Amino acid sequence: MSRALPRPVSRIVLAALITLSGSLAYEAMAQAQGPSRAEQLIKYRQALYTVLGGNFGPIAAMASGKAPFDPGQAALRAERVHFVARMLNEGFPAESVKGAPTRAKADIWANRAEFDRLLEELQQKTAELERTARTGDEAAIKRAVGATGQACKNCHDKFREEEKR
Amino acid sequence: MSRALPRPVSRIVLAALITLSGSLAYEAMAQAQGPSRAEQLIKYRQALYTVLGGNFGPIAAMASGKAPFDPGQAALRAERVHFVARMLNEGFPAESVKGAPTRAKADIWANRAEFDRLLEELQQKTAELERTARTGDEAAIKRAVGATGQACKNCHDKFREEEKR
Repeated sequence: MSRALPRPVSRIVLAALITLSGSLAYEAMAQAQGPSRAEQLIKYRQALYTVLGGNFGPIAAMASGKAPFDPGQAALRAERVHFVARMLNEGFPAESVKGAPTRAKADIWANRAEFDRLLEELQQKTAELERTARTGDEAAIKRAVGATGQACKNCHDKFREEEKR
Repeated sequence: MSRALPRPVSRIVLAALITLSGSLAYEAMAQAQGPSRAEQLIKYRQALYTVLGGNFGPIAAMASGKAPFDPGQAALRAERVHFVARMLNEGFPAESVKGAPTRAKADIWANRAEFDRLLEELQQKTAELERTARTGDEAAIKRAVGATGQACKNCHDKFREEEKR
Protein backbone atom coordinates (compact mmCIF):
# COMPACT_ATOMS: atom_id res chain seq x y z
CA MET A 1 0.00 0.00 0.00
CA SER A 2 2.71 2.40 0.93
CA ARG A 3 3.98 2.17 -2.66
CA ALA A 4 0.90 4.09 -3.76
CA LEU A 5 2.11 7.08 -1.80
CA PRO A 6 4.09 9.63 -3.75
CA ARG A 7 7.61 8.58 -2.88
CA PRO A 8 10.51 8.69 -2.72
CA VAL A 9 10.58 12.24 -1.46
CA SER A 10 12.84 13.91 -3.91
CA ARG A 11 15.83 16.01 -2.99
CA ILE A 12 13.99 18.96 -4.49
CA VAL A 13 11.00 18.48 -2.24
CA LEU A 14 13.30 18.07 0.75
CA ALA A 15 15.12 21.22 -0.22
CA ALA A 16 11.83 23.04 -0.53
CA LEU A 17 10.74 21.82 2.90
CA ILE A 18 14.01 22.99 4.39
CA THR A 19 13.55 26.28 2.63
CA LEU A 20 10.09 26.74 3.96
CA SER A 21 11.01 25.74 7.48
CA GLY A 22 13.94 28.11 7.45
CA SER A 23 12.64 31.04 5.54
CA LEU A 24 11.37 34.30 6.83
CA ALA A 25 8.56 34.00 4.31
CA TYR A 26 7.38 30.99 6.21
CA GLU A 27 7.19 33.06 9.35
CA ALA A 28 4.53 35.20 7.73
CA MET A 29 2.55 32.11 6.78
CA ALA A 30 2.90 30.62 10.27
CA GLN A 31 1.39 33.79 11.64
CA ALA A 32 -1.68 33.34 9.45
CA GLN A 33 -3.89 33.50 12.54
CA GLY A 34 -1.99 36.63 13.48
CA PRO A 35 -1.66 39.58 11.13
CA SER A 36 -4.16 39.87 8.32
CA ARG A 37 -3.11 40.06 4.70
CA ALA A 38 -3.67 43.84 4.81
CA GLU A 39 -1.51 44.14 7.90
CA GLN A 40 1.27 42.20 6.22
CA LEU A 41 1.09 44.34 3.09
CA ILE A 42 1.14 47.55 5.11
CA LYS A 43 4.05 46.26 7.20
CA TYR A 44 5.94 45.45 3.98
CA ARG A 45 5.25 48.91 2.55
CA GLN A 46 6.38 50.62 5.74
CA ALA A 47 9.50 48.45 5.80
CA LEU A 48 10.39 49.66 2.29
CA TYR A 49 10.15 53.27 3.45
CA THR A 50 12.16 52.52 6.59
CA VAL A 51 14.95 51.02 4.49
CA LEU A 52 14.72 53.86 1.98
CA GLY A 53 14.86 56.53 4.67
CA GLY A 54 17.60 54.72 6.55
CA ASN A 55 19.80 55.00 3.48
CA PHE A 56 18.69 58.42 2.27
CA GLY A 57 19.42 59.80 5.74
CA PRO A 58 23.21 59.44 5.57
CA ILE A 59 23.52 60.91 2.06
CA ALA A 60 21.15 63.77 2.97
CA ALA A 61 23.27 64.42 6.07
CA MET A 62 26.34 64.70 3.84
CA ALA A 63 24.52 67.00 1.45
CA SER A 64 23.45 69.33 4.25
CA GLY A 65 26.87 69.38 5.87
CA LYS A 66 25.73 67.49 8.97
CA ALA A 67 28.13 64.68 8.10
CA PRO A 68 31.48 64.79 6.28
CA PHE A 69 31.29 64.01 2.57
CA ASP A 70 32.39 60.46 1.84
CA PRO A 71 32.18 59.54 -1.86
CA GLY A 72 32.14 55.78 -1.22
CA GLN A 73 29.33 56.08 1.29
CA ALA A 74 27.44 58.45 -0.99
CA ALA A 75 27.64 55.98 -3.88
CA LEU A 76 26.55 53.07 -1.67
CA ARG A 77 23.61 54.96 -0.19
CA ALA A 78 22.51 56.30 -3.57
CA GLU A 79 22.57 52.81 -5.08
CA ARG A 80 20.37 51.52 -2.26
CA VAL A 81 18.00 54.48 -2.42
CA HIS A 82 17.42 53.89 -6.12
CA PHE A 83 17.09 50.13 -5.69
CA VAL A 84 14.46 50.46 -2.98
CA ALA A 85 12.66 53.33 -4.72
CA ARG A 86 12.05 50.96 -7.64
CA MET A 87 10.38 48.51 -5.23
CA LEU A 88 7.76 51.00 -4.09
CA ASN A 89 5.37 50.24 -6.95
CA GLU A 90 4.55 46.99 -5.20
CA GLY A 91 3.94 48.74 -1.90
CA PHE A 92 0.42 49.90 -2.62
CA PRO A 93 -1.82 47.01 -3.66
CA ALA A 94 -5.56 47.60 -3.37
CA GLU A 95 -5.80 45.32 -0.32
CA SER A 96 -3.48 47.64 1.62
CA VAL A 97 -5.74 50.70 1.72
CA LYS A 98 -6.61 49.94 5.33
CA GLY A 99 -6.17 47.27 7.97
CA ALA A 100 -3.34 48.71 10.07
CA PRO A 101 -2.18 52.17 11.12
CA THR A 102 -0.86 53.86 8.00
CA ARG A 103 -0.15 57.37 6.80
CA ALA A 104 -0.93 56.42 3.20
CA LYS A 105 -4.03 58.41 2.23
CA ALA A 106 -6.91 56.65 0.48
CA ASP A 107 -6.40 59.29 -2.24
CA ILE A 108 -3.53 57.14 -3.50
CA TRP A 109 -5.99 54.53 -4.72
CA ALA A 110 -8.63 57.07 -5.76
CA ASN A 111 -6.09 58.98 -7.82
CA ARG A 112 -3.65 56.28 -8.75
CA ALA A 113 -2.43 57.82 -11.99
CA GLU A 114 -1.24 60.93 -10.17
CA PHE A 115 0.40 58.82 -7.47
CA ASP A 116 2.15 56.68 -10.06
CA ARG A 117 3.34 59.80 -11.86
CA LEU A 118 4.92 61.17 -8.67
CA LEU A 119 6.49 57.80 -7.94
CA GLU A 120 7.96 57.69 -11.42
CA GLU A 121 9.38 61.17 -10.89
CA LEU A 122 10.98 59.99 -7.68
CA GLN A 123 12.54 57.06 -9.49
CA GLN A 124 13.91 59.36 -12.18
CA LYS A 125 15.52 61.47 -9.45
CA THR A 126 16.94 58.47 -7.61
CA ALA A 127 18.33 57.09 -10.89
CA GLU A 128 20.05 60.43 -11.40
CA LEU A 129 21.23 60.39 -7.78
CA GLU A 130 22.78 56.96 -8.27
CA ARG A 131 24.48 58.02 -11.53
CA THR A 132 25.74 61.23 -10.00
CA ALA A 133 26.97 59.58 -6.81
CA ARG A 134 29.15 57.24 -8.86
CA THR A 135 31.05 60.25 -10.20
CA GLY A 136 32.01 61.48 -6.73
CA ASP A 137 31.20 65.07 -7.74
CA GLU A 138 30.16 66.52 -4.40
CA ALA A 139 28.31 69.58 -5.72
CA ALA A 140 26.37 67.50 -8.26
CA ILE A 141 25.52 64.93 -5.59
CA LYS A 142 24.15 67.67 -3.36
CA ARG A 143 21.92 68.88 -6.17
CA ALA A 144 20.72 65.33 -6.87
CA VAL A 145 19.99 64.82 -3.16
CA GLY A 146 17.97 68.03 -3.16
CA ALA A 147 16.00 66.92 -6.22
CA THR A 148 15.33 63.53 -4.64
CA GLY A 149 14.18 65.11 -1.38
CA GLN A 150 11.86 67.40 -3.33
CA ALA A 151 10.38 64.39 -5.14
CA CYS A 152 9.75 62.73 -1.74
CA LYS A 153 8.08 65.89 -0.51
CA ASN A 154 5.91 66.31 -3.61
CA CYS A 155 4.31 62.94 -2.96
CA HIS A 156 4.09 63.28 0.82
CA ASP A 157 2.34 66.64 0.50
CA LYS A 158 -0.44 65.04 -1.54
CA PHE A 159 -0.65 61.49 -0.37
CA ARG A 160 0.74 61.15 3.17
CA GLU A 161 -1.12 61.98 6.37
CA GLU A 162 0.73 64.14 8.86
CA GLU A 163 -0.02 61.62 11.60
CA LYS A 164 -0.67 57.91 11.56
CA ARG A 165 -4.31 57.02 11.44
CA MET B 1 24.91 94.25 11.07
CA SER B 2 22.98 91.82 8.95
CA ARG B 3 25.97 91.62 6.60
CA ALA B 4 27.85 89.76 9.33
CA LEU B 5 25.36 86.94 9.01
CA PRO B 6 26.35 84.08 6.71
CA ARG B 7 24.53 85.00 3.56
CA PRO B 8 23.45 84.78 0.85
CA VAL B 9 21.87 81.40 1.41
CA SER B 10 23.35 79.35 -1.38
CA ARG B 11 21.36 77.22 -3.76
CA ILE B 12 23.08 74.21 -2.25
CA VAL B 13 21.94 75.11 1.23
CA LEU B 14 18.42 75.71 -0.06
CA ALA B 15 18.48 72.37 -1.82
CA ALA B 16 19.68 70.74 1.37
CA LEU B 17 16.88 72.37 3.35
CA ILE B 18 14.33 71.17 0.81
CA THR B 19 15.88 67.74 1.03
CA LEU B 20 15.69 67.67 4.76
CA SER B 21 12.14 68.97 4.88
CA GLY B 22 11.07 66.40 2.35
CA SER B 23 13.05 63.39 3.27
CA LEU B 24 12.04 60.38 5.25
CA ALA B 25 15.36 60.66 7.05
CA TYR B 26 14.17 63.95 8.44
CA GLU B 27 11.12 62.26 9.83
CA ALA B 28 13.36 60.15 12.04
CA MET B 29 15.13 63.26 13.30
CA ALA B 30 11.84 65.09 13.89
CA GLN B 31 10.80 62.20 16.08
CA ALA B 32 13.90 62.64 18.23
CA GLN B 33 11.69 62.94 21.30
CA GLY B 34 9.95 59.78 20.10
CA PRO B 35 11.81 56.57 19.38
CA SER B 36 15.25 56.16 20.89
CA ARG B 37 18.31 55.50 18.77
CA ALA B 38 18.11 51.82 19.73
CA GLU B 39 14.44 51.67 18.71
CA GLN B 40 15.28 53.23 15.35
CA LEU B 41 18.12 50.79 14.75
CA ILE B 42 15.97 47.80 15.68
CA LYS B 43 13.16 49.09 13.47
CA TYR B 44 15.61 49.42 10.59
CA ARG B 45 16.93 45.88 11.13
CA GLN B 46 13.43 44.44 11.26
CA ALA B 47 12.52 46.35 8.12
CA LEU B 48 15.44 44.73 6.29
CA TYR B 49 14.16 41.28 7.25
CA THR B 50 10.61 42.21 6.29
CA VAL B 51 11.78 43.28 2.83
CA LEU B 52 14.01 40.21 2.54
CA GLY B 53 11.23 37.84 3.55
CA GLY B 54 8.70 39.62 1.37
CA ASN B 55 10.84 38.85 -1.64
CA PHE B 56 12.09 35.42 -0.63
CA GLY B 57 8.49 34.34 -0.05
CA PRO B 58 7.44 34.40 -3.72
CA ILE B 59 10.53 32.57 -4.97
CA ALA B 60 10.25 30.00 -2.14
CA ALA B 61 6.59 29.52 -3.08
CA MET B 62 7.66 28.79 -6.67
CA ALA B 63 10.34 26.40 -5.47
CA SER B 64 7.89 24.46 -3.32
CA GLY B 65 5.23 24.31 -6.01
CA LYS B 66 2.82 26.60 -4.16
CA ALA B 67 3.06 29.10 -7.00
CA PRO B 68 3.67 28.55 -10.71
CA PHE B 69 7.29 28.96 -11.80
CA ASP B 70 7.88 32.33 -13.44
CA PRO B 71 11.49 32.88 -14.53
CA GLY B 72 11.17 36.67 -14.69
CA GLN B 73 9.72 36.84 -11.19
CA ALA B 74 12.31 34.40 -9.90
CA ALA B 75 15.15 36.54 -11.27
CA LEU B 76 13.63 39.73 -9.84
CA ARG B 77 13.06 38.23 -6.39
CA ALA B 78 16.51 36.63 -6.31
CA GLU B 79 18.17 39.94 -7.21
CA ARG B 80 16.33 41.68 -4.37
CA VAL B 81 17.03 38.90 -1.87
CA HIS B 82 20.75 39.14 -2.57
CA PHE B 83 20.74 42.94 -2.53
CA VAL B 84 19.01 43.10 0.85
CA ALA B 85 21.04 40.20 2.30
CA ARG B 86 24.15 42.29 1.68
CA MET B 87 22.63 45.10 3.76
CA LEU B 88 22.22 42.94 6.87
CA ASN B 89 25.75 43.58 8.13
CA GLU B 90 24.62 47.05 9.11
CA GLY B 91 21.57 45.69 10.92
CA PHE B 92 23.31 44.73 14.13
CA PRO B 93 25.24 47.67 15.60
CA ALA B 94 26.14 47.38 19.29
CA GLU B 95 23.52 49.98 20.25
CA SER B 96 20.77 47.72 18.91
CA VAL B 97 21.18 44.85 21.40
CA LYS B 98 18.10 46.03 23.28
CA GLY B 99 15.69 48.93 23.44
CA ALA B 100 12.68 47.52 21.59
CA PRO B 101 11.05 44.10 21.19
CA THR B 102 13.45 41.99 19.14
CA ARG B 103 14.08 38.33 18.46
CA ALA B 104 17.79 38.97 17.94
CA LYS B 105 19.58 37.13 20.77
CA ALA B 106 22.30 38.92 22.73
CA ASP B 107 24.51 36.00 21.66
CA ILE B 108 24.90 37.77 18.32
CA TRP B 109 27.05 40.41 19.97
CA ALA B 110 28.72 38.00 22.40
CA ASN B 111 29.69 35.69 19.55
CA ARG B 112 29.94 38.09 16.68
CA ALA B 113 32.50 36.14 14.65
CA GLU B 114 30.15 33.15 14.43
CA PHE B 115 27.23 35.39 13.53
CA ASP B 116 29.26 37.13 10.85
CA ARG B 117 30.33 33.75 9.46
CA LEU B 118 26.72 32.61 9.14
CA LEU B 119 25.77 35.91 7.54
CA GLU B 120 28.57 35.54 5.01
CA GLU B 121 27.35 32.04 4.23
CA LEU B 122 23.88 33.42 3.62
CA GLN B 123 25.30 36.03 1.26
CA GLN B 124 27.21 33.35 -0.66
CA LYS B 125 23.97 31.43 -1.07
CA THR B 126 21.99 34.49 -2.13
CA ALA B 127 24.72 35.41 -4.63
CA GLU B 128 24.38 31.91 -6.07
CA LEU B 129 20.60 32.24 -6.02
CA GLU B 130 20.81 35.47 -8.00
CA ARG B 131 23.23 33.97 -10.53
CA THR B 132 21.14 30.84 -10.91
CA ALA B 133 17.87 32.72 -11.21
CA ARG B 134 19.25 34.66 -14.17
CA THR B 135 19.67 31.40 -16.07
CA GLY B 136 15.98 30.48 -15.74
CA ASP B 137 16.95 26.86 -14.91
CA GLU B 138 14.04 25.83 -12.72
CA ALA B 139 15.67 22.80 -11.09
CA ALA B 140 18.84 24.76 -10.29
CA ILE B 141 16.80 27.63 -8.90
CA LYS B 142 14.93 25.25 -6.60
CA ARG B 143 18.24 23.93 -5.28
CA ALA B 144 19.53 27.48 -4.75
CA VAL B 145 16.33 28.42 -2.93
CA GLY B 146 16.77 25.38 -0.69
CA ALA B 147 20.37 26.30 0.07
CA THR B 148 19.34 29.89 0.86
CA GLY B 149 16.54 28.72 3.14
CA GLN B 150 18.96 26.44 4.95
CA ALA B 151 21.37 29.36 5.45
CA CYS B 152 18.49 31.40 6.94
CA LYS B 153 17.66 28.52 9.26
CA ASN B 154 21.26 27.94 10.37
CA CYS B 155 21.40 31.48 11.72
CA HIS B 156 17.89 31.55 13.16
CA ASP B 157 18.52 28.32 15.07
CA LYS B 158 21.46 29.90 16.85
CA PHE B 159 20.68 33.55 17.05
CA ARG B 160 16.93 34.14 16.85
CA GLU B 161 14.45 33.78 19.70
CA GLU B 162 11.34 31.79 18.96
CA GLU B 163 9.19 34.61 20.29
CA LYS B 164 9.71 38.33 20.52
CA ARG B 165 11.06 39.47 23.84
